[in-house]
Amino acid sequence: MTDIALADLAAALGLELVGDGAIRIRRPAHPAEAGPDDLAVAMDRRYGDALSAGRARAAILWPGADPAEHGLDAALLAPRPRYAMAGLTAHFAPPTEAAPGVHPSAVIDPSAELGRAASVGPLAVIGPGARVGAGAVVLAHASLGAQAEIGSGTVLHSGARVGARCRLGARVLVHPNAVIGADGFSFTTAEPGAVEAAKARGAVDTPSDAGHVRIHSLGAVAIGDDVEIGAGATIDRGTLRDTVVGAGTKIDNQVQVGHNVRIGRDCLICAQVGLAGSAEIGDRVVLGGKVGVADNIRIGEDSVVAGASAVGSHVPARSVMMGVPAMPRDRFRRLHMALGRLPRMMERLAAAEPGKP
Amino acid sequence: MTDIALADLAAALGLELVGDGAIRIRRPAHPAEAGPDDLAVAMDRRYGDALSAGRARAAILWPGADPAEHGLDAALLAPRPRYAMAGLTAHFAPPTEAAPGVHPSAVIDPSAELGRAASVGPLAVIGPGARVGAGAVVLAHASLGAQAEIGSGTVLHSGARVGARCRLGARVLVHPNAVIGADGFSFTTAEPGAVEAAKARGAVDTPSDAGHVRIHSLGAVAIGDDVEIGAGATIDRGTLRDTVVGAGTKIDNQVQVGHNVRIGRDCLICAQVGLAGSAEIGDRVVLGGKVGVADNIRIGEDSVVAGASAVGSHVPARSVMMGVPAMPRDRFRRLHMALGRLPRMMERLAAAEPGKP
Amino acid sequence: MTDIALADLAAALGLELVGDGAIRIRRPAHPAEAGPDDLAVAMDRRYGDALSAGRARAAILWPGADPAEHGLDAALLAPRPRYAMAGLTAHFAPPTEAAPGVHPSAVIDPSAELGRAASVGPLAVIGPGARVGAGAVVLAHASLGAQAEIGSGTVLHSGARVGARCRLGARVLVHPNAVIGADGFSFTTAEPGAVEAAKARGAVDTPSDAGHVRIHSLGAVAIGDDVEIGAGATIDRGTLRDTVVGAGTKIDNQVQVGHNVRIGRDCLICAQVGLAGSAEIGDRVVLGGKVGVADNIRIGEDSVVAGASAVGSHVPARSVMMGVPAMPRDRFRRLHMALGRLPRMMERLAAAEPGKP
Repeated sequence: MTDIALADLAAALGLELVGDGAIRIRRPAHPAEAGPDDLAVAMDRRYGDALSAGRARAAILWPGADPAEHGLDAALLAPRPRYAMAGLTAHFAPPTEAAPGVHPSAVIDPSAELGRAASVGPLAVIGPGARVGAGAVVLAHASLGAQAEIGSGTVLHSGARVGARCRLGARVLVHPNAVIGADGFSFTTAEPGAVEAAKARGAVDTPSDAGHVRIHSLGAVAIGDDVEIGAGATIDRGTLRDTVVGAGTKIDNQVQVGHNVRIGRDCLICAQVGLAGSAEIGDRVVLGGKVGVADNIRIGEDSVVAGASAVGSHVPARSVMMGVPAMPRDRFRRLHMALGRLPRMMERLAAAEPGKP
Repeated sequence: MTDIALADLAAALGLELVGDGAIRIRRPAHPAEAGPDDLAVAMDRRYGDALSAGRARAAILWPGADPAEHGLDAALLAPRPRYAMAGLTAHFAPPTEAAPGVHPSAVIDPSAELGRAASVGPLAVIGPGARVGAGAVVLAHASLGAQAEIGSGTVLHSGARVGARCRLGARVLVHPNAVIGADGFSFTTAEPGAVEAAKARGAVDTPSDAGHVRIHSLGAVAIGDDVEIGAGATIDRGTLRDTVVGAGTKIDNQVQVGHNVRIGRDCLICAQVGLAGSAEIGDRVVLGGKVGVADNIRIGEDSVVAGASAVGSHVPARSVMMGVPAMPRDRFRRLHMALGRLPRMMERLAAAEPGKP
Repeated sequence: MTDIALADLAAALGLELVGDGAIRIRRPAHPAEAGPDDLAVAMDRRYGDALSAGRARAAILWPGADPAEHGLDAALLAPRPRYAMAGLTAHFAPPTEAAPGVHPSAVIDPSAELGRAASVGPLAVIGPGARVGAGAVVLAHASLGAQAEIGSGTVLHSGARVGARCRLGARVLVHPNAVIGADGFSFTTAEPGAVEAAKARGAVDTPSDAGHVRIHSLGAVAIGDDVEIGAGATIDRGTLRDTVVGAGTKIDNQVQVGHNVRIGRDCLICAQVGLAGSAEIGDRVVLGGKVGVADNIRIGEDSVVAGASAVGSHVPARSVMMGVPAMPRDRFRRLHMALGRLPRMMERLAAAEPGKP
């Protein structure tokens, strides 16, 4: 968070420097808001006007841009803007809000193990037999259940809950109020119930009057290295085995992961996605915001499902899916376009068939 | 959690035993992962190969199965697999992670009443006049508001919030970070606003510039016996009366229940369902994941609504509904099939009418 | 919460009184449940029968109603029922559950500043350099991060999280377990990934094997005066600038607001709405429950989007939108009606073309 010479920043990010590398940079900023000590971030030509309106002396620009043309003394040139943003924001990101050591108000069971340089914030709770890895951080009001385990460098943000016996790898980020390891939602009845009737016969002709009996969750949740779990997300335990999230997978806010779900490596699961029980998501799958996946459905690796789609049947690898219910994107577009032309076609047909409704 | 002889387990679950009942079982397990002390769970023929690959000596199988054929010394036979799972997992479920008594770090108002054998975990908060039933458990970081009440055997998991004056019955399970008794979302304006204009005339021709005025929630939330409320679920208070959840109803993670909603008994409300204000859900209704129900809508008893549907008009009892907007399942399928054939039909018509667009 | 003479209540609410103004009112109540000390709330003729069945002596009725006809001694007449409800419920709303002063179990950094008459509840956490406005209330288990700031009269309900450097205006209500200021969900890869391939070519032909690299959130969240944030809602920080919520905007439970989003003034954002990164929502926009808005999409001022719609392209001001994907309401209705007639039309065409599939 201290300032840095533009030439040093160029070297750190592996970007081409044009102009005065001695300019010192305090922080990156939106071009319209950037002051003389800021690096204006304008990696697309459409920000040109905003740049001229701002007061920055230096900017990060698109390849081939000329800083002088925008009234700048220097620039970094970024051939792949989002990747440059990753490096740039990593350089200037504030450290996690964690004081070293254990806050005196935290409640830590004597049988818990804390790794070297772990940090436990105010009013956090660490249960019996729990293990906190080296350099891991448990922030205010977070809780780690009995025999649960978090790896080195993992961060539990404020109010995050990790249930008993769940295991998180290294460098996992669990955002505020996320819940890992709640019980699965799994019930049955002594006699066949309404859902079974509806599935079998399409009608509810034999309403069950029996109450729901609970299927308990004996498994836990196992999360690989370098995973993120968004604020308010919930991941349920498995019934007999663990619910699994593969290494490198990023899960956004308010995502729901049901019991027994298995998510592969390096997936992107956007906000408010819901994965019903026993769904299987392959490696590198991308699910857009609000996607729903029905229980026991498999989505093959490298598939992409557009936001707001509902997946009700298996999806082969490398598919691009869209719609409610989800179908291949090309088919969705064809149907949607045909539907758009339908009212006019019906009018034409009606005109050709006078007297018909 | 100690081991049990297979014969005793058969008796406890009411299942037929075939083979050596003296084998001692430590836990149920997935057939591929089951060791010699585990009971492999394989109640469907498709698990046959996994069984042969595992090391289990005993399994729970489908009716008519022969344990010897799968290299087993004994088996339980389950005519209704999910019901057997309920009994089996209940037998082996670990106890709630609650130490007896009141943790010294909990903050309990002197005017609160704790029932016999109630347990209050670290850093929990119990407000003035609140009542905790016999054997009830309030886990770490959970809070119970002023004059709120939970029945005997009810469990508030970590971070669960129960607002002032809300009342929960016996044996209710409130999962981590669920919120019962937030204020309803109810606003008005001094003059008619955009929504009223849109509903009345389909256009927003008189934008209101008045601010929103709050309608306060004077009611609370009343929850019957044997209800479950999932992790991160939210249930708002009523305006004049209580919002109500009937006995035996199970609510999954991240479900939103608006103000004045009345949910009947023994319903299943799957994850991420949203019930807008004053919706009424009859007894034994099943709502699939992500279903939305508009405000003031009634869904009749024993109805089933498929996941990802949006219900915008009243639903008669015993209906099976699907779609956005939701319609009877048979109609949905008919329309969906017709839509699928539409592009080809349009091509045929275009071919028959050369020169028309 | 003490009782009030009906004549005084009429004066306070600016409503016409008919009959005995000396009757003392203890609380407003549903007409069927109202006792002799209650004010039955029956501002629509359809409550007439419920009124007659109840035991109320006074009611709030529709304009022109005659209290005697319903067995009442007096009535207030409300020309705009919901607006009358706002005044009525405000009068009888219980005060926030906050004791004056700072609870001894709260953990407050010595560098934090508390305004005059601020209240901090049990086990709340206030971080270094944080500022709490005059009369603001931080309830049990809520947390306020380093250098964060809440204005005068603002209330953080139980378990609410406000991250470092976030700024909330005056009279903001943050409901239980809401999260303001989690990190944005923003990742990239060194080489183009599956989403880019899918967008460009509609197929995932070059699966990336590179891991996701994080774009950090250097911005915070800025929230105007008189905003409400619902239970379990999540609002992420911006990348370079703050994520912004304009004054007077009301956000319901379980709403997700992505990084860099800008929401205008006086909007109503209903439950479970999801706004993807960099979406821009104009002033006075109303988004129904479960609406999704894709990233970088703009919705013009005074627009209304019906519940369960998915907005994937820009929306002009004053639009009324509906559907997945969202389209103008009239167009949605026309398409939906045409689709409903499609199966029968196909049958007719098939009958006219024997031999064709």
